[in-house]
Amino acid sequence: MSEKLPKTALTPATHTTPPAKFSHGVRKGNILQVAGQVGFGPAAEGQAPTPVGPGLREQTLQTFANVEAILKEGGASWDDAVMVRVYLTDTAHFAEFNEIYNEYFASLQEAPAARTTVYVGLPAGLLVEVDTLAVLG
Amino acid sequence: MSEKLPKTALTPATHTTPPAKFSHGVRKGNILQVAGQVGFGPAAEGQAPTPVGPGLREQTLQTFANVEAILKEGGASWDDAVMVRVYLTDTAHFAEFNEIYNEYFASLQEAPAARTTVYVGLPAGLLVEVDTLAVLG
Amino acid sequence: MSEKLPKTALTPATHTTPPAKFSHGVRKGNILQVAGQVGFGPAAEGQAPTPVGPGLREQTLQTFANVEAILKEGGASWDDAVMVRVYLTDTAHFAEFNEIYNEYFASLQEAPAARTTVYVGLPAGLLVEVDTLAVLG
Repeated sequence: MSEKLPKTALTPATHTTPPAKFSHGVRKGNILQVAGQVGFGPAAEGQAPTPVGPGLREQTLQTFANVEAILKEGGASWDDAVMVRVYLTDTAHFAEFNEIYNEYFASLQEAPAARTTVYVGLPAGLLVEVDTLAVLG
Repeated sequence: MSEKLPKTALTPATHTTPPAKFSHGVRKGNILQVAGQVGFGPAAEGQAPTPVGPGLREQTLQTFANVEAILKEGGASWDDAVMVRVYLTDTAHFAEFNEIYNEYFASLQEAPAARTTVYVGLPAGLLVEVDTLAVLG
Repeated sequence: MSEKLPKTALTPATHTTPPAKFSHGVRKGNILQVAGQVGFGPAAEGQAPTPVGPGLREQTLQTFANVEAILKEGGASWDDAVMVRVYLTDTAHFAEFNEIYNEYFASLQEAPAARTTVYVGLPAGLLVEVDTLAVLG
């Protein structure tokens, strides 16, 4: 007889439609899971999703912005993140990625999330993908 | 003095024995984690686990069935899934995979889970691996 | 008016400083997330992190020890782990990795964690990376 926890899809207005039946983010109870985000710029009607700039910095910052929009949509912030999964395509990007990471997260109030970084294949043109698990409350 | 949460291994009868000391799925409290599933057909005594068909479609549908059996064993369903992690081996499979995904999840009642798709190496013959995090309640 | 859950960074004394603004582990409520660990030996002042031994066995055992130290720092143990994510670099390592895995986890009291194993790129010299999600209570 316990009440069923609501499960909410998180879909920021800036986001392009997912290419399949999944949510950009979902919240159930105090768990918020952000789907893999890449460096696509804000959705533009009638235009295929396109990564911003060819470089790692632009793509990474846009990716973080995309994750953050989903966190916010679910009532959370980076301070609630417990895990950041980072998918890069080239081990040579690690040092630059970390620089960008440190700048971006310089003003965190809470303990930084844990992180795993691995090197995988991504669709052509994409250099980085990030997903995030947050615990609210 | 709080009671310890029970932790339960989820082992559907159809599943082959894991190749090491891990569980196909585990539930603790309202968290249910499904281990990486691949397109192995139902366990047959004295036979090594073998992927069904050589094609992406057959393997993907069997993989989803294998995940679903574990969710059910733990009292959950795809509607409780908050994250689906997809490991493919070839970026050229993305479009076909999404078609299969959309068909398979067409009848979801709740918000679809978030998803991350990356391209990795898998043992020879396997084209897809999927794991899933569910939150019950 | 509900009290905010504390979020705690888990930083064992033996661990080298993370190469960026993330935590080796973080606990919030009953969720404990361990960041990707590799086979770095104990931190030594003025020395860059170095993997122990060149072999899979040494690196794997050190990696497990590094995960375990973080679990302990957060008041947990392997028995609380619900998911172990394993990143190997070579499918030929699977059988040996499983042997080491089975030995290492032989004395688990609770149901073993779920596991996903995929093959990715890692920085030069590293053969294995592991992260872990635990649910306490």
